[in-house]
Amino acid sequence: MPRRYLNLIPLPDALAVMRRAFPPLDRTETVPLRLAVGRVTAEPLYAEYSVPQADIAMFDGYAVRSEDTLQAQDQRPLPLENCAPINTGEVLPPSFDAVVMIEDTWNEDGIPWIRKSAAPWQHVRHAGEDIRAGELVLPKGHQVRPFDIGALATYGITQVKVRSVRVGIIPTGSDLVPLGVAPAPGQTVETNTLMAEAYLTRMGATCRRYRIVPDDPDLIRSALEEAVAENDLVILSAGSSAGSRDYSSDVVGALGEIIFHGIAVRPGKPVLLARVDDKPVLGMPGYPVAAQTVLREIVGDLLAWWGLSPVRGEELRVRLSRKLASDLGFDEFIPVSVGQVDGTCWATPHPRGGGIQMTVVRANGYLHIPAGREGIEAGEEVRVRLTVPLERIARTLICTGVRHPALNELGNCLSEAGYLLHCCNASTMRAVLAIRAKTCHAASICIPETGAAWNDLVLRYLPEVDLLRVPVARTELGIAAASDLDTDSLESLRFVNRPKGSAARILFDMWLEEQEIDTARLTGYEHEVRTPEAVVTAVGNGFADAGVCPAAMARDAGLRFTPLGYESCDLLIREECAEDEGVASLIRAARSPEFKERLQSLERFRADRAGRTGA
Amino acid sequence: MPRRYLNLIPLPDALAVMRRAFPPLDRTETVPLRLAVGRVTAEPLYAEYSVPQADIAMFDGYAVRSEDTLQAQDQRPLPLENCAPINTGEVLPPSFDAVVMIEDTWNEDGIPWIRKSAAPWQHVRHAGEDIRAGELVLPKGHQVRPFDIGALATYGITQVKVRSVRVGIIPTGSDLVPLGVAPAPGQTVETNTLMAEAYLTRMGATCRRYRIVPDDPDLIRSALEEAVAENDLVILSAGSSAGSRDYSSDVVGALGEIIFHGIAVRPGKPVLLARVDDKPVLGMPGYPVAAQTVLREIVGDLLAWWGLSPVRGEELRVRLSRKLASDLGFDEFIPVSVGQVDGTCWATPHPRGGGIQMTVVRANGYLHIPAGREGIEAGEEVRVRLTVPLERIARTLICTGVRHPALNELGNCLSEAGYLLHCCNASTMRAVLAIRAKTCHAASICIPETGAAWNDLVLRYLPEVDLLRVPVARTELGIAAASDLDTDSLESLRFVNRPKGSAARILFDMWLEEQEIDTARLTGYEHEVRTPEAVVTAVGNGFADAGVCPAAMARDAGLRFTPLGYESCDLLIREECAEDEGVASLIRAARSPEFKERLQSLERFRADRAGRTGA
Repeated sequence: MPRRYLNLIPLPDALAVMRRAFPPLDRTETVPLRLAVGRVTAEPLYAEYSVPQADIAMFDGYAVRSEDTLQAQDQRPLPLENCAPINTGEVLPPSFDAVVMIEDTWNEDGIPWIRKSAAPWQHVRHAGEDIRAGELVLPKGHQVRPFDIGALATYGITQVKVRSVRVGIIPTGSDLVPLGVAPAPGQTVETNTLMAEAYLTRMGATCRRYRIVPDDPDLIRSALEEAVAENDLVILSAGSSAGSRDYSSDVVGALGEIIFHGIAVRPGKPVLLARVDDKPVLGMPGYPVAAQTVLREIVGDLLAWWGLSPVRGEELRVRLSRKLASDLGFDEFIPVSVGQVDGTCWATPHPRGGGIQMTVVRANGYLHIPAGREGIEAGEEVRVRLTVPLERIARTLICTGVRHPALNELGNCLSEAGYLLHCCNASTMRAVLAIRAKTCHAASICIPETGAAWNDLVLRYLPEVDLLRVPVARTELGIAAASDLDTDSLESLRFVNRPKGSAARILFDMWLEEQEIDTARLTGYEHEVRTPEAVVTAVGNGFADAGVCPAAMARDAGLRFTPLGYESCDLLIREECAEDEGVASLIRAARSPEFKERLQSLERFRADRAGRTGA
Repeated sequence: MPRRYLNLIPLPDALAVMRRAFPPLDRTETVPLRLAVGRVTAEPLYAEYSVPQADIAMFDGYAVRSEDTLQAQDQRPLPLENCAPINTGEVLPPSFDAVVMIEDTWNEDGIPWIRKSAAPWQHVRHAGEDIRAGELVLPKGHQVRPFDIGALATYGITQVKVRSVRVGIIPTGSDLVPLGVAPAPGQTVETNTLMAEAYLTRMGATCRRYRIVPDDPDLIRSALEEAVAENDLVILSAGSSAGSRDYSSDVVGALGEIIFHGIAVRPGKPVLLARVDDKPVLGMPGYPVAAQTVLREIVGDLLAWWGLSPVRGEELRVRLSRKLASDLGFDEFIPVSVGQVDGTCWATPHPRGGGIQMTVVRANGYLHIPAGREGIEAGEEVRVRLTVPLERIARTLICTGVRHPALNELGNCLSEAGYLLHCCNASTMRAVLAIRAKTCHAASICIPETGAAWNDLVLRYLPEVDLLRVPVARTELGIAAASDLDTDSLESLRFVNRPKGSAARILFDMWLEEQEIDTARLTGYEHEVRTPEAVVTAVGNGFADAGVCPAAMARDAGLRFTPLGYESCDLLIREECAEDEGVASLIRAARSPEFKERLQSLERFRADRAGRTGA
């Protein structure tokens, strides 16, 4: 029988239960100084000796007795008859109490002369002036910074006892292949433990990744026993959802006690926490974005509770660019791109979904919607946790709209000018509304190259706005089919379609109207797929007979192609914003010969690659 | 003849000259994925294949044809006669176009039944929905984050070409000893190259530290030639000031062309930039805080110009707690501790001086006073660059005043409660004024245990303020002398004294008054030393006959001791602030038995150590 997480525990309760169940650990390790940066001191560090150890000279010059120099005056120079040459850092010889800088002397007959008396202790660093023997250098619980280790070394400290946690990470799943092996369709590269290791190591944990364990309860059990014996915390990667192959909770339940299974958090719901041999075992979901949420919010919280230092960016108050729904009772984490438009910081959400890892790569922060909220209105102020340094926000340009591949190349060109292009997926309609609301620097729209589409889709909603239209790319679209298209028997064919508002759909509808076909009688007209690749896949494997996609894609897949027209991908920019330095760089980049050249070479690369793999 | 940096170049000009002289470098290296975190991509990264590679199931359940399920209704369940069991992530078999979740079915006679029709493509992830083959994952110039490497691995990328710079670092100086060797007085542990390596490695540079080279032009020359051949940038540590032993500039000048020597920056003035074999050679000053400034502001700027990612904290607008003077024409960098008192963020400066490394360790940020300013007024708004994460500021408590060793232990106790104690050195008078101006959470004052001192030094300036006085430690003070003190012949002795306002000075003055001694006739009365260690040193090596210091210190040094009285180190806190959670923790810590116990064990440790080393 399938099981569900019937008792989803709220996130704050889960954290409280976890902290109660696993009090701070006393694990430490001693590392040489150069490896101590970023780690947290497990005990206070004291200076081994005073620095300086004795009174020393602060400059190169002469050690003198200050009382001998009292008579020196600008008009009455004095020879330093009783003095000793001294270099910076050298110990002041007994009976001298001041240093005269070499620059304040000149030599006559082998004796240095001065024009100014020296005050007692002038240019002398006293013993212990920097630190005294036994004085505290760093308190317990201090995260060591790069320049701290210079000081520690100066004070005779060559190694540091730092807080540590040994984390064992076991990947489970028969569909997994290790990094470096090309996955077959239906297989996944095992990457969550790599990511966990990178994240937790930066917190100061010592991670050990175990080999991939197939979906077999006995194998999972023995891997878990080994890892629990060798570590302070064990993470079972994947195997924490409640499907037919997920044995983790059974195995963990048999070896120990399950503390909770299922948290009211999205993504990341299927997380499991258990106690085995008095150690925490955490079942981490397999979807990468869900795994990230669990690493950050659950594992990260436990390690912080155990005294390690959280790895996280700054929190920023921003406005949300569009309404977001959220289920009451669920803490939700949503990747966003933050950028400053016309003096206001806006966060634009990326699509949700634990499997779409690119949303996190494309984002520069994330938004936490607490369980008590049913959603957030457009324009509402929210707190966003950044995943990049704060100062990068000022150099971030938000482009809302259709995410055409050419925009990626544009982003590459823009990076040369020091700006970061963040493309936030949205329909042409939403993109136009974002320009109206001034929540983005530019909108990317893909519309058929017809004046009608421009008027209907853009001008209608922005009648008052002075707009720049910057062309980015044009793409030929048409119908891909397994065999030649017989326009007389279209109703016998099974189609796949693209969503309303897409250029492919508009061109298809126009063509059907020309052919005088009633769409209600067209098989599959209502079967929308979200990507042009899905069109090619459906036609390629015989599940459908025809559908609209780019010419190049049809050609690469060896399908017949009936051209319908061109789609143009343009940037819409408010004229008033074009003077902003970043926006001006964006426009310059889009119009540059380098960008055009890149697009062409990308096209050649694609064609070449298709030619090789398609043969 | 001694040379000076006659032509000090302004900092902004120095950076501009440097950037013009050394255009961005095209050095890259290819690192395995797990070592790519924090590095900057040298080229855009594209997905090796689409993810998913085919249409796959989003949940465990059954693959179905959506049109077969049209008739299913809540009141009219339907058997799934044509279906295939499918697990999450598995490829949808051809001829199926939807997935029914296992939870939405039940089994009867070996056949799954449903009550709800499936929409086309329900619970199906289309091929390429996460990313399409050849689509951009990361643009050029992107600093790789821990979760990025999960995505890269998922898309088949196993190694990353990142920007790199090879930096050779040569320590020079006959007074240097390597880390791990106890320095004799006048020697220094070679730590600046260790610090440089730690800092520059975090920027993504590949550092090579060379062996210590003594002050010998030929040896420096051959070390430099070797390092220039092997690296893109060479740093000569120390040897860049203009003293008698500093041969770097001669050697560098002979091998190449000096671009500048001396920048109008404090600390860090003696920095030297040269071109040798078309590569930059940087002479870095030996004083650690000066070296840090050069690493951050000069070397860091060059590496950022060459495409690496600067390591720096956030910038924060705060108010300066006290007036700071600064020389017109010099860019000055001053370590500060930032804390929030009564809703306002205040920065309190630590003492300046390139040799006092502890000021940087104790600080959580630094203030940049540009060359055009002659100083900053108390209360003025300034920008501070933090050296700790921003969110730590809210947990920082600023204690201004006398830095008694007991306060360090108090800081250790407080860290258990999650707060960070920053002690900013100031006289008792300044500390009392800081309480009046509300620029600190607590003031630490060390005054003689007499009612008169309390009235004169505290109450007089804070008549209207309700104060808490929290005792921290008491110390016996007295006169340490090489032989027994003959009070009848005090005027024949040479004294060292402590600064005005110090408890030692007040007690000494009171005692001299009792003895009816005219201070004008006391030799050395005006010779003030800044630390009690300096008193002990002066008496110990016969340079003076007597001076005031703590009883324990005199005892440890084997000196005779004439008690004068007790000094009490107390915290002053505004009663109104005592409810602040952090301040309440501070008071609790100061009153806790753990803190008293720590002070006692520290005292035992000190006495024990003195007993061993003094014998």
